[in-house]
Amino acid sequence: MPYVVERVVKWGECDPAGIIYTPRAFDYATEAVEGWYRDVGGLDWQGMGQRNFGAPTVHAECDFLRPLRPNEKVRVVLGIERIGEASLTFRIDCLGGDGEPSLKVTMVSCFTDFAGGEARPMPIPPDIRARARIYRDAGLGYK
Amino acid sequence: MPYVVERVVKWGECDPAGIIYTPRAFDYATEAVEGWYRDVGGLDWQGMGQRNFGAPTVHAECDFLRPLRPNEKVRVVLGIERIGEASLTFRIDCLGGDGEPSLKVTMVSCFTDFAGGEARPMPIPPDIRARARIYRDAGLGYK
Amino acid sequence: MPYVVERVVKWGECDPAGIIYTPRAFDYATEAVEGWYRDVGGLDWQGMGQRNFGAPTVHAECDFLRPLRPNEKVRVVLGIERIGEASLTFRIDCLGGDGEPSLKVTMVSCFTDFAGGEARPMPIPPDIRARARIYRDAGLGYK
Amino acid sequence: MPYVVERVVKWGECDPAGIIYTPRAFDYATEAVEGWYRDVGGLDWQGMGQRNFGAPTVHAECDFLRPLRPNEKVRVVLGIERIGEASLTFRIDCLGGDGEPSLKVTMVSCFTDFAGGEARPMPIPPDIRARARIYRDAGLGYK
Repeated sequence: MPYVVERVVKWGECDPAGIIYTPRAFDYATEAVEGWYRDVGGLDWQGMGQRNFGAPTVHAECDFLRPLRPNEKVRVVLGIERIGEASLTFRIDCLGGDGEPSLKVTMVSCFTDFAGGEARPMPIPPDIRARARIYRDAGLGYK
Repeated sequence: MPYVVERVVKWGECDPAGIIYTPRAFDYATEAVEGWYRDVGGLDWQGMGQRNFGAPTVHAECDFLRPLRPNEKVRVVLGIERIGEASLTFRIDCLGGDGEPSLKVTMVSCFTDFAGGEARPMPIPPDIRARARIYRDAGLGYK
Repeated sequence: MPYVVERVVKWGECDPAGIIYTPRAFDYATEAVEGWYRDVGGLDWQGMGQRNFGAPTVHAECDFLRPLRPNEKVRVVLGIERIGEASLTFRIDCLGGDGEPSLKVTMVSCFTDFAGGEARPMPIPPDIRARARIYRDAGLGYK
Repeated sequence: MPYVVERVVKWGECDPAGIIYTPRAFDYATEAVEGWYRDVGGLDWQGMGQRNFGAPTVHAECDFLRPLRPNEKVRVVLGIERIGEASLTFRIDCLGGDGEPSLKVTMVSCFTDFAGGEARPMPIPPDIRARARIYRDAGLGYK
């Protein structure tokens, strides 16, 4: 089963045009990635911080296909597109109330070592890599 | 001179009713308090954290007198209402484009010692207390 | 049954101190009030706007009893404290992962007629008043 | 002169890692685009709405080059990369306290006609197009 977050578009996420405010697309996507690390990847961002590393986003992009409106039910579906040496590329699709894709987001996390006060890319920890591989190989995500 | 933050109401701070979304009043007020500590109080929140203490808000309230709208120029004026043993009570007034008060906010910071892993109230550090006294005694803030 | 929203504290709702950022308390509370109108009160904010009225918040306050942290499960429990001529007073309690209250919020909605281009208080619509009464009389909310 | 917004990174825009929370990059960029339309383009988003059209973002992307931290001074510099039939492509660079680029954002606005209840792309209004051309031809933006 793909990792899915179900949410309802909040009044305060929308702007005076009555549709979701552009940057909120990335709030939706970032929260899905956060949840994937916690619920599927085996280590949440807090746990990474305690071990002196992290997985900050180095690239994010979104195509806005159809505006979302207050009270609309949204399914945020997460897939993994690519597993690099130090990076994971997530594809996050937000499906609106009619089941059609509304937001198509790509986010790239780069694993980063903060030990020694400097930030350096580091290989994906083996546990997280193994889980990401299983997830990707199962072909999960929105088709 | 009172501590004043000038801002312009952003499109994304407003909701589908075309007016500022309720919780944003507290964003405005919190950012003014943050700025006061940095620019007037002599120590910013980051500096406090490095010394293992902080000044989290323990109480906040707001009267919404008049809605703010996109592009409206706002003057956020900060006053100090009370200096306690461990707490500072700020009064933050947001004046809209017509100069009339729109939001009337009260926020109470409680100085808190995080050393030893537990959070305990602590006396206001003497430097910050001295600066707060000068500021309050000058009668600064919105009248 | 009281109206309860279950949520998980997001990384992005927390600040560099590792705890929920003050204004987010009012995001939690406002979203619970929004949900109550939609799911219990019988008319959501969008529907009100289409009929040319609204229920903006005229007063909000919060006591911060205990900080919330990333990934903490929160139960947001809504009660109605008072039904006025034109206003509803909500009491929203956010219970942290240990079941203890963390945030104690009061929010007052004032029903407001926007017809004719001016905003004027108006009596609570009979349907919403009836539902609010049933809810309040059942003694729902956090004790 | 290029259109520049000067801002200071807020405590509440940063996450428990002590750096700017990913989606806030798009808040910074969107607010710069909003300001450009108002201050340079000759018509703000509210004015567009009153004339039954808008310029919603259809694509947004960001490279995160260096994290921003609380209190860091940021210069948000806006350039126009491309003027299409119905769209404007903005390039927004956020320069950190050291003057080096921290966030490199691209945002595409698509002019959209909302008359008749349906959203359809429309040519850029001549006035806005003329101003965009002058701005682009002057080669403004970050180099």
